[in-house]
Amino acid sequence: MQPIFDYIDNNRRLFIDRLIDYLRHPSISAHGIGMDQVADYLLTWLTSLGFDAHLMPTPGWPLVLARRFDQPATPTVLLYGHYDVQPPEPLEEWISPPFEPTIRNGRLYARGAGDNKGQHFAQILALESLLAVHGRLPCNVIVLLEGEEEVGSPHIAGFVRTHRDLLNADLVVTSDGPVAENGRPTIEFGVRGVVSFELRARGAKRDLHSGNFGGIAPNPLWTLVHLLGTMKNPRGDITIDGFYDNVLPPTQLERAVLACLPVDEQAAKRDLEIDHFDVPPDRPYYERLAFWPTLTINGLHGGYSGSGSKTVLPHEAFVKCDIRLVEAQTVEEIFAKVEAHVRRHAPGVEFIRQGGMDPSKTPLDSPYVQPLRQAILTAQGEEPLLVPAMGGSLPDYVFTKILGIPDFTVPYANADEANHAPNENLELDRFIRGIKTGAAMLTYLGQMQPSTVPARATDPSP
Amino acid sequence: MQPIFDYIDNNRRLFIDRLIDYLRHPSISAHGIGMDQVADYLLTWLTSLGFDAHLMPTPGWPLVLARRFDQPATPTVLLYGHYDVQPPEPLEEWISPPFEPTIRNGRLYARGAGDNKGQHFAQILALESLLAVHGRLPCNVIVLLEGEEEVGSPHIAGFVRTHRDLLNADLVVTSDGPVAENGRPTIEFGVRGVVSFELRARGAKRDLHSGNFGGIAPNPLWTLVHLLGTMKNPRGDITIDGFYDNVLPPTQLERAVLACLPVDEQAAKRDLEIDHFDVPPDRPYYERLAFWPTLTINGLHGGYSGSGSKTVLPHEAFVKCDIRLVEAQTVEEIFAKVEAHVRRHAPGVEFIRQGGMDPSKTPLDSPYVQPLRQAILTAQGEEPLLVPAMGGSLPDYVFTKILGIPDFTVPYANADEANHAPNENLELDRFIRGIKTGAAMLTYLGQMQPSTVPARATDPSP
Repeated sequence: MQPIFDYIDNNRRLFIDRLIDYLRHPSISAHGIGMDQVADYLLTWLTSLGFDAHLMPTPGWPLVLARRFDQPATPTVLLYGHYDVQPPEPLEEWISPPFEPTIRNGRLYARGAGDNKGQHFAQILALESLLAVHGRLPCNVIVLLEGEEEVGSPHIAGFVRTHRDLLNADLVVTSDGPVAENGRPTIEFGVRGVVSFELRARGAKRDLHSGNFGGIAPNPLWTLVHLLGTMKNPRGDITIDGFYDNVLPPTQLERAVLACLPVDEQAAKRDLEIDHFDVPPDRPYYERLAFWPTLTINGLHGGYSGSGSKTVLPHEAFVKCDIRLVEAQTVEEIFAKVEAHVRRHAPGVEFIRQGGMDPSKTPLDSPYVQPLRQAILTAQGEEPLLVPAMGGSLPDYVFTKILGIPDFTVPYANADEANHAPNENLELDRFIRGIKTGAAMLTYLGQMQPSTVPARATDPSP
Repeated sequence: MQPIFDYIDNNRRLFIDRLIDYLRHPSISAHGIGMDQVADYLLTWLTSLGFDAHLMPTPGWPLVLARRFDQPATPTVLLYGHYDVQPPEPLEEWISPPFEPTIRNGRLYARGAGDNKGQHFAQILALESLLAVHGRLPCNVIVLLEGEEEVGSPHIAGFVRTHRDLLNADLVVTSDGPVAENGRPTIEFGVRGVVSFELRARGAKRDLHSGNFGGIAPNPLWTLVHLLGTMKNPRGDITIDGFYDNVLPPTQLERAVLACLPVDEQAAKRDLEIDHFDVPPDRPYYERLAFWPTLTINGLHGGYSGSGSKTVLPHEAFVKCDIRLVEAQTVEEIFAKVEAHVRRHAPGVEFIRQGGMDPSKTPLDSPYVQPLRQAILTAQGEEPLLVPAMGGSLPDYVFTKILGIPDFTVPYANADEANHAPNENLELDRFIRGIKTGAAMLTYLGQMQPSTVPARATDPSP
């Protein structure tokens, strides 16, 4: 790997300047700012690298799809990323403006530095470096860059379903999110899914006097309180009928890997100014986070909200909730179970489905893990932590469930990258190590013995 | 009674003109508008009627107190009312301006027409008419007009406690509120009490990501939902420890009287556009309203309230509630029980006491009932309905609990008086019948046989 690492080190200044140029271009999907320009920027660059590159239209912003198949006998790696960024507001909290990238103390500050422009830029620079040094790539590569990740990826599932032929990869590698809190590199094998829903309760057609109608006319707030009380008990168990049917406990391997993940619960509680976490002894922190579903009330509103008191009986109320799903639960299953539960316990309450995303999990014993670990160790000098699943949700299921291929996330960004927040930043050393890691991953994947490469699924789930 | 009724009929036009003049004077306690002028207006009038009249200062607006003791051997009646009115907003919904009294279809429209200026004006005109016809009053009279009823009567209890010597009455008669829905006159014997409180729950010091902290960090909305679930069950029973200790079922007489009260539940449900009332067969409508306490959530707010979904775990939430108390429960007792319950079930939740008012009830078999019924029958031609207690709350306890004397409310206003709302109004025929009723009540009370007048309590509760 030395020649390629030397090439990257020798071009450090140039690569940073090129990232700065990329980050100067806003691409805010939520506000429709700069999206086409940045998609064209990527298209031009990938084409110049000899990729068969296209903008793929969707009902929203286009995807950038680029394919280069240099090594028929090697695995095909799909590198996923997203070229859209979060809106930069509140602007007044930025020390330097969000689209004027600025280096301070070895970090580059700009919207998108970590999430996700800086990280997929490193992946593409890895491709460029490999081509510059070797003239060809060590394995086959598909680059897929989405323009709607920050607005919930509404069209990628449909795109993947209708373009399986263009996405004939063996595995997916995504560089997004931060490394572990303690700075260790990680390989993430999955994410929880999510469903969001709203419940609306209605009482009389107008607010009533609590003295004349309290206890007599229905109170939509009591209706919601009692309904929610049937959905989760004070111990945190979700009590929706059949809810845990498809929840599997961690395997022995998963438990062993979870036990290696560092967590400083005391420090986290101090930071949040709370005196306890709801983490029972038999369900430790990361197992709770990755292997158990949750039901969170995001917001609940109804009735009087002013100062003092008002003896009113409100006529409507609503609650917004999300459920995090774990592997083997599905969005459809959980929506159906929640809706049936609401119909049974509070037939008058309106159930409104909002967004949903299936969970995703790749086996820890996948044969691709070894080359990825080796690449990270070689490029960064540290063994990665293995994270069986993340607590949050990403549309990884489009690869694992729709295409039926393993999906690995290998983040390059520092833990305090401040993604989605003012003063988003990326440590420049991590950016350079990311380019090296990308080059090493493709190299080691290309060197896999044919006998260890799994046959590609011929009939993935629809 | 005929001479006095004739006098009132002969002065109908004059009395209505004088009420119109009175209603032209705004007296909005919440906004501090016109209060002193209206208090002086009453003081001048009552002094001119030969009353020993004074403005009694309080930390808020003054009370008007006027005493005239013409008949040592007869009962002393305290006529209570309030000279302040609700703010008139929203002004644009008034057909004629709130302080330009206007007659339409036999009704006088103005703020205060029914609540309460028109009704205590009728009482004072009854005194004036009795003096004009007979030269003296048929019994002893104390007039007490408050200026803070519409802002929760914050100072009347203190005033009554420190001026027992000036309030040495045998009974209280208040003319306020509307007659029965079907137009029948009523005598009301009591009101429920009320306590208002707020519960505040806090989680982390900031909102958190539901994927990273849901189910792990405390969620103040779940805390409130589960706490509220321990306070009232879905059947409507309040499950706060010891809550029903002092709740007594209605007596046989009270049950019989309740059964006579008309209620058209179907029409009420149609009007409110709801399909059911929470009125179990063993606890019919008026018994539910008058003899059972209620716990109403007035407002509950926390977390996201915008459109769509947001996967946030909120860091704070609050709920505002009121409890209606029934006779023998007290504000102090219920505040203490709720606070103890909250401390036991959710020690981290802040309990904030807001306003409170004790309940009040006068026995249905009081000897004063007979003269009041006779007066209403004579002046209005109909037997009054007897209402053991109202669902709402008024500070009647200052008379029944502090002074230890019976308290009767005899409303003169039409059921659709629209008090507290735009286009408040009073039927002019009811106003005139009110003057007659006031005169007849005092006359019949003055004619009570000494043997039927109860001895006055010499040591009322402190």
